[in-house]
Amino acid sequence: MGIGTYEEYAERLRKMKHNVYFNGKKWGREGDYISGGMYAIRQTFDCAHDPKYEDVCTATSHLTGEKINRFTHIHRSKDDLLKKQLMTRLLCHRVGGCIQRCMGVDALNALAIVTYDCDQANGTHYHERFNKYLEYSQKYDLVANCAQTDVKGVRGVRPSDQPDPDQYVRIVKVLEDGIVVRGAKICNSIAPYADEIIVTPTRFMGAKDAAYAVAFALPGDWEGVKLMALPGKHPKRHHLDSPMSTVGDVESMTIFDDVFVPNERVFMNGLENPDVVQYAGYLALMFAHFHRHSYTGCKTAVSEVIAAQAALVADVNGIAKEDHVREKISHIIGTAELVFAAGQASAYRAVEFPNGSWVPDEILTNAGRRIAGQEIYHEYSILADLTGGICASLPTELSYYDPETAELCNKYIVRNPKYTAEETHRVMRMMENKLCDPFEGAQMVAGVHGGGSPLMETITMMSRYDLEPLKDIAKYLAGINKDLPRYERPTATPRAMLDKFKKTQK
Amino acid sequence: MGIGTYEEYAERLRKMKHNVYFNGKKWGREGDYISGGMYAIRQTFDCAHDPKYEDVCTATSHLTGEKINRFTHIHRSKDDLLKKQLMTRLLCHRVGGCIQRCMGVDALNALAIVTYDCDQANGTHYHERFNKYLEYSQKYDLVANCAQTDVKGVRGVRPSDQPDPDQYVRIVKVLEDGIVVRGAKICNSIAPYADEIIVTPTRFMGAKDAAYAVAFALPGDWEGVKLMALPGKHPKRHHLDSPMSTVGDVESMTIFDDVFVPNERVFMNGLENPDVVQYAGYLALMFAHFHRHSYTGCKTAVSEVIAAQAALVADVNGIAKEDHVREKISHIIGTAELVFAAGQASAYRAVEFPNGSWVPDEILTNAGRRIAGQEIYHEYSILADLTGGICASLPTELSYYDPETAELCNKYIVRNPKYTAEETHRVMRMMENKLCDPFEGAQMVAGVHGGGSPLMETITMMSRYDLEPLKDIAKYLAGINKDLPRYERPTATPRAMLDKFKKTQK
Amino acid sequence: MGIGTYEEYAERLRKMKHNVYFNGKKWGREGDYISGGMYAIRQTFDCAHDPKYEDVCTATSHLTGEKINRFTHIHRSKDDLLKKQLMTRLLCHRVGGCIQRCMGVDALNALAIVTYDCDQANGTHYHERFNKYLEYSQKYDLVANCAQTDVKGVRGVRPSDQPDPDQYVRIVKVLEDGIVVRGAKICNSIAPYADEIIVTPTRFMGAKDAAYAVAFALPGDWEGVKLMALPGKHPKRHHLDSPMSTVGDVESMTIFDDVFVPNERVFMNGLENPDVVQYAGYLALMFAHFHRHSYTGCKTAVSEVIAAQAALVADVNGIAKEDHVREKISHIIGTAELVFAAGQASAYRAVEFPNGSWVPDEILTNAGRRIAGQEIYHEYSILADLTGGICASLPTELSYYDPETAELCNKYIVRNPKYTAEETHRVMRMMENKLCDPFEGAQMVAGVHGGGSPLMETITMMSRYDLEPLKDIAKYLAGINKDLPRYERPTATPRAMLDKFKKTQK
Amino acid sequence: MGIGTYEEYAERLRKMKHNVYFNGKKWGREGDYISGGMYAIRQTFDCAHDPKYEDVCTATSHLTGEKINRFTHIHRSKDDLLKKQLMTRLLCHRVGGCIQRCMGVDALNALAIVTYDCDQANGTHYHERFNKYLEYSQKYDLVANCAQTDVKGVRGVRPSDQPDPDQYVRIVKVLEDGIVVRGAKICNSIAPYADEIIVTPTRFMGAKDAAYAVAFALPGDWEGVKLMALPGKHPKRHHLDSPMSTVGDVESMTIFDDVFVPNERVFMNGLENPDVVQYAGYLALMFAHFHRHSYTGCKTAVSEVIAAQAALVADVNGIAKEDHVREKISHIIGTAELVFAAGQASAYRAVEFPNGSWVPDEILTNAGRRIAGQEIYHEYSILADLTGGICASLPTELSYYDPETAELCNKYIVRNPKYTAEETHRVMRMMENKLCDPFEGAQMVAGVHGGGSPLMETITMMSRYDLEPLKDIAKYLAGINKDLPRYERPTATPRAMLDKFKKTQK
Repeated sequence: MGIGTYEEYAERLRKMKHNVYFNGKKWGREGDYISGGMYAIRQTFDCAHDPKYEDVCTATSHLTGEKINRFTHIHRSKDDLLKKQLMTRLLCHRVGGCIQRCMGVDALNALAIVTYDCDQANGTHYHERFNKYLEYSQKYDLVANCAQTDVKGVRGVRPSDQPDPDQYVRIVKVLEDGIVVRGAKICNSIAPYADEIIVTPTRFMGAKDAAYAVAFALPGDWEGVKLMALPGKHPKRHHLDSPMSTVGDVESMTIFDDVFVPNERVFMNGLENPDVVQYAGYLALMFAHFHRHSYTGCKTAVSEVIAAQAALVADVNGIAKEDHVREKISHIIGTAELVFAAGQASAYRAVEFPNGSWVPDEILTNAGRRIAGQEIYHEYSILADLTGGICASLPTELSYYDPETAELCNKYIVRNPKYTAEETHRVMRMMENKLCDPFEGAQMVAGVHGGGSPLMETITMMSRYDLEPLKDIAKYLAGINKDLPRYERPTATPRAMLDKFKKTQK
Repeated sequence: MGIGTYEEYAERLRKMKHNVYFNGKKWGREGDYISGGMYAIRQTFDCAHDPKYEDVCTATSHLTGEKINRFTHIHRSKDDLLKKQLMTRLLCHRVGGCIQRCMGVDALNALAIVTYDCDQANGTHYHERFNKYLEYSQKYDLVANCAQTDVKGVRGVRPSDQPDPDQYVRIVKVLEDGIVVRGAKICNSIAPYADEIIVTPTRFMGAKDAAYAVAFALPGDWEGVKLMALPGKHPKRHHLDSPMSTVGDVESMTIFDDVFVPNERVFMNGLENPDVVQYAGYLALMFAHFHRHSYTGCKTAVSEVIAAQAALVADVNGIAKEDHVREKISHIIGTAELVFAAGQASAYRAVEFPNGSWVPDEILTNAGRRIAGQEIYHEYSILADLTGGICASLPTELSYYDPETAELCNKYIVRNPKYTAEETHRVMRMMENKLCDPFEGAQMVAGVHGGGSPLMETITMMSRYDLEPLKDIAKYLAGINKDLPRYERPTATPRAMLDKFKKTQK
Repeated sequence: MGIGTYEEYAERLRKMKHNVYFNGKKWGREGDYISGGMYAIRQTFDCAHDPKYEDVCTATSHLTGEKINRFTHIHRSKDDLLKKQLMTRLLCHRVGGCIQRCMGVDALNALAIVTYDCDQANGTHYHERFNKYLEYSQKYDLVANCAQTDVKGVRGVRPSDQPDPDQYVRIVKVLEDGIVVRGAKICNSIAPYADEIIVTPTRFMGAKDAAYAVAFALPGDWEGVKLMALPGKHPKRHHLDSPMSTVGDVESMTIFDDVFVPNERVFMNGLENPDVVQYAGYLALMFAHFHRHSYTGCKTAVSEVIAAQAALVADVNGIAKEDHVREKISHIIGTAELVFAAGQASAYRAVEFPNGSWVPDEILTNAGRRIAGQEIYHEYSILADLTGGICASLPTELSYYDPETAELCNKYIVRNPKYTAEETHRVMRMMENKLCDPFEGAQMVAGVHGGGSPLMETITMMSRYDLEPLKDIAKYLAGINKDLPRYERPTATPRAMLDKFKKTQK
Repeated sequence: MGIGTYEEYAERLRKMKHNVYFNGKKWGREGDYISGGMYAIRQTFDCAHDPKYEDVCTATSHLTGEKINRFTHIHRSKDDLLKKQLMTRLLCHRVGGCIQRCMGVDALNALAIVTYDCDQANGTHYHERFNKYLEYSQKYDLVANCAQTDVKGVRGVRPSDQPDPDQYVRIVKVLEDGIVVRGAKICNSIAPYADEIIVTPTRFMGAKDAAYAVAFALPGDWEGVKLMALPGKHPKRHHLDSPMSTVGDVESMTIFDDVFVPNERVFMNGLENPDVVQYAGYLALMFAHFHRHSYTGCKTAVSEVIAAQAALVADVNGIAKEDHVREKISHIIGTAELVFAAGQASAYRAVEFPNGSWVPDEILTNAGRRIAGQEIYHEYSILADLTGGICASLPTELSYYDPETAELCNKYIVRNPKYTAEETHRVMRMMENKLCDPFEGAQMVAGVHGGGSPLMETITMMSRYDLEPLKDIAKYLAGINKDLPRYERPTATPRAMLDKFKKTQK
């Protein structure tokens, strides 16, 4: 209890109702299409049981005092934040990219804070409900998806003013024992192999948007939940299996087709109390913030994996010692180090919130996430540069095993004598997967957009950074102000936006 | 005669022997795997017959005076160079990227010059042979591949010093009526659907490498030629066919498994005359030069297509008027304009060679190609930015047609009311193809490496740019030299390297 | 006649009234403060008489058929545009940067077109006046400044709505024989040593801004014209004179303190006819356009000079052969080549205007100017990198001549044995001037802003680029449109904005 | 005692012998040329006495337990490193750039470690000597310069193989009570107003270079020490004095003209014991390392000052709310935050050395310093962009006070009504100082080179980063290795290079 196993998880999935749709059919949670994603999630169970990773992958529940998987833990200290970041980084190494499970823990942490603050301000009772839900999640070590991004319809038009009012998820009916919701969330990773789907708003809501100020959690196969899936996989290997070729994911558009949510799973309902509505955006930002902080762990690993592949392929190509190669690899490493440092520094500057959670600094978190997002395509470009055109023109795997061609193919693939033909083949096959592959194409896109694109980070940074005291430095230097107070930027969190928003709503 | 048709071309392919290998089988030149590539090549025939493109896609043979397809033409004026560049650009628009046929015309143009120069210097007789071959190519409007990049074995080791002497294509036997060659060329596009494979060396050769100084042409299905193929395709569409989803290619490692080449198809043979050996590198550079000049046409189009897609998807997303969006699109457009301008300026500065060919300026050509290569991943990154995560998580095509899900999927895809659900779907499907797709992944890699990576262009530019007269400007300004001669950089061509190489070989 | 001499020019300056103000005094046009600027202008006379530059520096007047200085010529062909660009480049080499005289020829060319078009549309008579003025300018080879940038007061507020109506130059009184103007122009180079000041509007004007739609020309010392000057000079040298240390300039804020302009020198007056007002912005854009085209010549030279200095200092430092050094130099060279190519290509695409002038393509011109502006600080950064900290800590010149220190200073400056101590000293002194100097600091700023900053070029490009036909490429590829018309971007000029503006004004 | 005052410092300087040379004369340590530098140093005394800065600017001596100025402190904990970084940042705000005194504390810290390690390994007695010297420095709060960069003569040639053996500082004679040294150090800031000059080697030395393995400290006016100075100042203000215009510095080439160094001030002497020679490079690296860590404090401040000036000038110009402006400012802020985070993270990862010192992580320190160096010119470019051309063409200060011109000048400078004419003038005058000024030009150069250019940081990073365990990630993902050990990069310090060097010297 508290730390689950892959087998239990897989067993739970097998029992779920079939509500995954793709290629014109309805699917259960088994088979090839889902195995790559489950392989990634598996690491989060296995490592929690592995003494080598236990220090970062487990934690102690503040609710029960039990040892739990850190993916279900609420961060109660700076150390928790540091360990969450490190856990994310280490697990990402094992799958060569996204570990896929962070959105769940990020959603839980956002809800822990926002339900508490909302209750305190408005006399609602979401936090208690949430804590029960959290305890349940911790007990069974449940895998949670977070469904945040609405399909949004016409950009620049508020939810309640949309021609089609369902373009943001909303409450269409309030019943005694629950609510009925309708709408769709896109860019929704891992929903088809998550135990739970946690739904949060995607933006600030105004008074007219009360029905859109809604947060809740449901099992992934709940009545009316329909997952329009896009399986992401590397091409099947016949002889050269590897972790890189095994990992995959499934994205989805998650549709709520008039879905009943029982009250005990509703964590925000703007129709219940108009003052709750303001907390929609606060929750949206808080989730984004924790998620971007997770990105300072995973993006570090993503860059380290790219640097590792760059270093390996350069060696296989016999160019590892050339200055330009070392310069390019050092650039990737430098980014990885800076992104991780930003996440660490934001954890060191974290502040405690009323519910006992700790929240990292938002400027630093966003600065770290942003540079990662700005660099990602460039990093793939370096990989392409160092690999050479071979990754885009490698004969198919079976040509290296077809008796008519195998000998010639293997003869002509060797380069650096340190590496056998098969090793060279393995590396180039990996680079083909990395650079010419729908799954990795999606990883590049996720590198830009996951957690919010660089543009969003810029907006967040500038919303939170108070330029006035900074400008005082310049006024002092120009001789306009006679004194210069000691200038240190205070820690920034989404709380500032809630306060600002409340003011403008008055 | 002179301008072929797609039907003739397809018919020729159908008749060829089966020597294409992939997925563990041997294939003929028909079927799905090859249709996308043939679709691209088809444009080069169709447009030559289309009055709207005739001015750029046809030319007059300097051998026969006949009207021919420009893809078989030798550039005899600056205007020819400008038209070749423009043709490449216009045809690339039609397939959303590489038009695939330029390597043939670039190889022919390189051979036209080098065979002549070699004959003049060494008393050989390659040019006459070449002209006969050219006339034959022009007559039937043959599609030619150019096989240049050797597999190369251990980097930094000369061909003749390699542990395996076959890592560069070489002559293993000289017979009365021809030669026998062995080796393999990689990164070899379109070979499986080319009529002809033209083989050129990949680097300068020293005296010991005489057997490697070899150039020749063979039909694609010639005895002993084995094509280890990698078909490149977008995923099959069921309902939303489009040019973007139709186009494809086939890459190959082209193996010469002790292949006999009859004398009339040998255009360079270092074993015949030791002085010929120096022309291997000259030919390598000359092909690279013409090919990079072609890239100033196609890369312009590649960037324009990206800008077009960026502008369209931004409009579909309803963000077309935002400043940052316009700034990003203008950046892509700016690159396209600069790359094309570089190619044009290099054509305007072209010089006539002894055989009557015109050669564009090498510094400008390389400066243009380089910036295109440096920007390519960044341009895709902008596309990812403006498209949003949807391109990496779009439900599968059939979900939009499955009666159980179609209505919901279509309901939740509309954004800008200017575009219907199907149009929005079409655009997002195109963006999925563009950003999360093995074929386009390969296009990105080709954007870096095709014709030589930015590093190669830097090396070429710096080999050819004479810094001494440039430094005289600085010496004059510093007061070290009393006078400043009028400084204009002379036109640069690969000829300079031949001269330099000849000197160092003495 | 037609091609003046430096002596005539200096003599004219000497005779001018004293209206230059700085350091708390009023100055005439002689002495140290002005000699560096006059040195630059001198090149434009001397080279026009020098057979080695005659082909580019002289032209034939379309008014008189006389041979004239190209700096007073109206471009009547593509060749004129190409030669103006090349002239600018070559002369800039001689002064290590801005040749300073181009704004005059750019203003004349803008007026030639706009006065004609305005007359044709509105029945005014500016063109005839202008031609007389032009003939006079050509006859005496007058040096003209162009005063365009108003001080502008509150940004985002129209001229006539400003709290202080004088923040844009305006007509305050209309008299029988002329007008009285008031206002100030900033960022106004060379006015203190120009024969003539040509005044043009800085933006489009609306109906209420009729008094601001004004263009005219005046001698530099005209009654009421006050030049608030900022002399730009390198520190005085005692022993190591050089062109680099000799060149300078004078900037000014040019104030029109209720200045009478006789009618024959008025080339636009919005109070005369309300339809003239629309031509204010057209003239502003047309001047900016010609000026940016000139920048494709001078910025090329600026980068070439930087590359020359980089190559020289790298050699002096003994690092010229290192890969990273060659890569950095090649980057600067590449930019120079692309910028020049953009200017050439825009000239090759030029179109003839009704008055017989030729106008280069605006997209290409702006794309070229923009990349130059974006790269300029980076280029100085490369110089700093290759020079080393010595340029910021070189002992003063006299320490190399003071008997107590000279020997030691010279002993410890030698590096590469190819260069003597004095030569090394000269080069490092030049680099100090280049990198740590108010004059060159201003050159860097001018590299960003001169002719309009990169942001302005982006705005211009996007205003003129029609995205609709470009988007058709994407619609065709997506299968939305069935056909793809041949896509070639038409030549763009400021005329399009006039037409657009006229439409929006109705 | 322990924390000095500016007055004591100034008094010490006044008493020093005249050995500063520039403009052909010998100077004492008073007057205008030196006041700007002394103004900067003054902050380090005043703030140590200021309760608002005391926590960061003072420390407790580990030798005496006394409260001392942190600029003379040896870092004995992670907290010391964090505080040193923060002190540097805060003080730099006060002078708008370099606080100038960090090189002293960095040299002391390097010597503390290296003398100890050398003694332990070789039985020498440098550490005790050093501690006495340190105690003396702490007692009087002495300002120390560090002279590291030799003039170096012919690049790529070892010190002992140089045509002139004096191009690196060396011992020319060993006496009973000391040594005699000869040579010159360049790029040597603040030497003319430092109490002490600490001399360290600039590179690793081989066995033949034993005489070059030398470190020592001398008073700045010691017999035979000759300072070839370059005063750096902003132009004198007449009415608008400000901190920005007051600060300055003096650079020097510091010549050792056969200087006797008494034994108690010699901290390394390769002629004493051949095994000491290896410690020369170790000391060079250790100083560079501490110095780069200081840069993570000052470069943060430099960027913050630029961001502050950018925000202020944008407001004065009335463009503060435009998206592109906010994006540009956020970019500078992001860099500042990342650089500081890198320095903090390297402090958090610090390790204790045998002597009790703490050494921050070298990879992170270098990654932070590098990005600062790469961005510096770009940041000035943003300033130029947001300021506009006015910073390069502002009328001279006195024109705003000359009765004939003052009214007009002030009338035409106002922009944003929030700012008076004088305030606007002050800001623009500051921007002129920032962008068009020899002192700030030197600051830009220092931004690239101070502490080592980005290239040096890349080399350091790649020398210390062990790619083998990193590559294991890629080997695991490719399926070459079956297991993946938990990968966390160990802390890196210069000690690794000493060990490597010792190995190669055997």
